[in-house]
Amino acid sequence: MKKVVLLRHGESTWNKENRFTGWTDVDLSPTGVQEAISAGKILKENGFVFGKAFTSYLKRAVKTLNQVLDVMDLDWIPVEKSWRLNEKHYGMLQGLNKAETAAKYGEDQVLVWRRSYDIAPNPLAIDEDRSPRKDIRYNELTNSELPLTEALIDTVNRIVPYWQCSIFPTLQQYDQIIVAAHGNSLRGIIKYLKGISDKDIISLNLPTAVPYVFEFDDAGKLVKDYFLGDADEINKKMNAVANQGKK
Amino acid sequence: MKKVVLLRHGESTWNKENRFTGWTDVDLSPTGVQEAISAGKILKENGFVFGKAFTSYLKRAVKTLNQVLDVMDLDWIPVEKSWRLNEKHYGMLQGLNKAETAAKYGEDQVLVWRRSYDIAPNPLAIDEDRSPRKDIRYNELTNSELPLTEALIDTVNRIVPYWQCSIFPTLQQYDQIIVAAHGNSLRGIIKYLKGISDKDIISLNLPTAVPYVFEFDDAGKLVKDYFLGDADEINKKMNAVANQGKK
Repeated sequence: MKKVVLLRHGESTWNKENRFTGWTDVDLSPTGVQEAISAGKILKENGFVFGKAFTSYLKRAVKTLNQVLDVMDLDWIPVEKSWRLNEKHYGMLQGLNKAETAAKYGEDQVLVWRRSYDIAPNPLAIDEDRSPRKDIRYNELTNSELPLTEALIDTVNRIVPYWQCSIFPTLQQYDQIIVAAHGNSLRGIIKYLKGISDKDIISLNLPTAVPYVFEFDDAGKLVKDYFLGDADEINKKMNAVANQGKK
Repeated sequence: MKKVVLLRHGESTWNKENRFTGWTDVDLSPTGVQEAISAGKILKENGFVFGKAFTSYLKRAVKTLNQVLDVMDLDWIPVEKSWRLNEKHYGMLQGLNKAETAAKYGEDQVLVWRRSYDIAPNPLAIDEDRSPRKDIRYNELTNSELPLTEALIDTVNRIVPYWQCSIFPTLQQYDQIIVAAHGNSLRGIIKYLKGISDKDIISLNLPTAVPYVFEFDDAGKLVKDYFLGDADEINKKMNAVANQGKK
């Protein structure tokens, strides 16, 4: 049985401040570091031994992964980083407080921006300070690849080919791999794997730093998927994420 | 001007206990973590921005690198890990205390084992618990590649092709790269780059976690090399390493 573990990064300093983060490269909070360590422990207790790891260009995901691998004594495995695993780009919302934005534009508009499948926030200008064009890590991207805002559909459209061409084929070489990334890039993978509708994917709220296991048979068919950990605690975490957009 | 920075890992828990480590995968000590953070700070202050990093399969090097990259806000750059950057394999000495070994076999014999160019300690048995054949991370290696002990010449012979075929060609793509590794694998690179004799390389004692910069011109010729940091402190560190084999 081949296994892929999807892991959303632990709490970041901006999760805590309840601000739209997107591609802003904020650090893990101390709570986030502890969440990552706990994720590593539960993976180790469950006998996981990854052959390869994937993560994004954003430090909250990279550092979550580093903590997990260290707890599992797997610091040495190959790690591949890609901008395609980055969080959804939140356009001009990046840096704004979620509750203040809700108070100003209304909860419904914020929910549209956060959770509609195909309506993106207004884009950043390509030459403003927050623009990813100003960040050397995206030098390799063409202007047509480089997002200045994204709706979830755009995030899905950039992550699925990376899943198909880079992550999934790795299972031919390794039995177990881990993908440490973000709420919306992981939604894209899960939507693709489980055939979730555009409408339903919006209400899937991934808990932070809870390992989500996908098992595949030898033909590469998804057989089952499940979270590792205490069900009550996972539900609590999912609800906390769902409530972030409220005033 | 192209630049390669060589960085020996920070103090490990066994450096502190004064034991032969070799391929034993021991962690950084708290001092070692602080050394790595200091190395990151001085590299950042000196304006370094690495495009790619290389490290070994051993966590004291991987974690030194992770700390450095985090301080430099470069968590996102690609990192390539290779067993060829591992420390010299110390054979049956792995795990023994250096001062006790000196008291038992004499300082001269220990200096021969530690520092002779072509005399290796007795090998481990391939099926004993300390054997790297028992460690899944070396599954990819053939028996003829897998060392059960090494003299410095063996370490040099496995690191030089990796420098030639993997590390150095990367300068065509990136202006600055960093290699976080170990006293003896870095000796191998330095010996090759500077044409140091078999005899003289033995007395080169690299200080821990002090960035050692190599500058190359456009033709790939080594132009100059220098340590970053306070000269007195670097000398103190070099002497500390040199004295580890004494009773």
